[in-house]
Amino acid sequence: MSGLLVTIEGGEGAGKTTQSALLAAALEQLGCSVLRTREPGGAPGAEALRGFLLGRDHGLSLRAEAMAHFAARIDHVDSTIKPALASGRLVLCDRFTDSTLAYQGYGLARGDPAVLDFIARLTALLDVRPALTLMLDVRRAEGRRRVRLRGQDDDRYERLDEAFHERVAAGYRTIAAADPARCRLIAAGDPVEAVQRRMVAAVQALLRDGPLQEGAAAPGRQ
Amino acid sequence: MSGLLVTIEGGEGAGKTTQSALLAAALEQLGCSVLRTREPGGAPGAEALRGFLLGRDHGLSLRAEAMAHFAARIDHVDSTIKPALASGRLVLCDRFTDSTLAYQGYGLARGDPAVLDFIARLTALLDVRPALTLMLDVRRAEGRRRVRLRGQDDDRYERLDEAFHERVAAGYRTIAAADPARCRLIAAGDPVEAVQRRMVAAVQALLRDGPLQEGAAAPGRQ
Repeated sequence: MSGLLVTIEGGEGAGKTTQSALLAAALEQLGCSVLRTREPGGAPGAEALRGFLLGRDHGLSLRAEAMAHFAARIDHVDSTIKPALASGRLVLCDRFTDSTLAYQGYGLARGDPAVLDFIARLTALLDVRPALTLMLDVRRAEGRRRVRLRGQDDDRYERLDEAFHERVAAGYRTIAAADPARCRLIAAGDPVEAVQRRMVAAVQALLRDGPLQEGAAAPGRQ
Repeated sequence: MSGLLVTIEGGEGAGKTTQSALLAAALEQLGCSVLRTREPGGAPGAEALRGFLLGRDHGLSLRAEAMAHFAARIDHVDSTIKPALASGRLVLCDRFTDSTLAYQGYGLARGDPAVLDFIARLTALLDVRPALTLMLDVRRAEGRRRVRLRGQDDDRYERLDEAFHERVAAGYRTIAAADPARCRLIAAGDPVEAVQRRMVAAVQALLRDGPLQEGAAAPGRQ
């Protein structure tokens, strides 16, 4: 496959939707063919599962809920992401495997090693891997303020308590620290334009230098 | 865990529901504490996923559909099967992992090795394994006749064509041949009482001798 998968991650109100739209437009300007997509969903079957998973709490066990998210993900991979990568496109995906780790693994399961290991084994079943993950990091108070301004209906994760969202944010920082070759933690509390410049620079570095090898020296927080 | 998991498998109209009810009653008579359950479903979250999966075709990819069945399965394992095994009960489960292999792997995917391997990797994620699997084998014409007599609403798999159901039946025979230490292929076209005697005898042998070791000499078709 000749394309590149770039994922955008972060908690509620981190600015993923706004930033990914701007980033897609900037990359198209630079001559990239970009497919912008999002999870859960991104293909008809996966969107149906999204409705099932986000609509209400069906009482699934933690492992079952994580696996159902991966079922939606593998549909998205098979139906949307792999065909786009095969035709050489840059796929920009809003949420991917790290969301399951952060929300189910660190948030709901409170970092239970058995659940984290289970999610790692599900991740190993996927045959695509992001070349770069941009993790938008904002203080929870700012994220909450943005969600309120947006005024959309909450999904069932957004309605969970503050302690849950703090665990998710800390989980993202743990994931970024553990995989510095792939992840860039982006300070996202600044004005939209400043954050966008950081994101475009990170993707340009990827296009210029290729993916960092695992274990290579990682750049600091941008 | 001190209990035993016994699964009952077979195509449409093989007699699984009738035979498992009779078998549960016979085993209770013998002094076993039996939990009778079925898939997809068997726990509240898994039943909700059952409704999603059997109601209509959402267009999930083959791998995604197989994984969604395993998400329901792991909920059933976590919420129902493991607690019953931990308290020493004999769990009698109508359909389990072999149904996904037979229906999705051999039926829908026509035995595609990549899909069979994917299902094997999902199976390896489970932390319970049947001690014995009773596979009810009937000619397709007889199975079809029984489904017509039953007169229930078809689910979306029952509505698939004859060639699909032939592939499922052949798939079950392949699975049984590959794992003779666990699987007993039971000729199920005979009268209910004759089939029932074979099933009780197979479980009694398990209770008397314990599970056969993998690689041990297997008894022939009963």
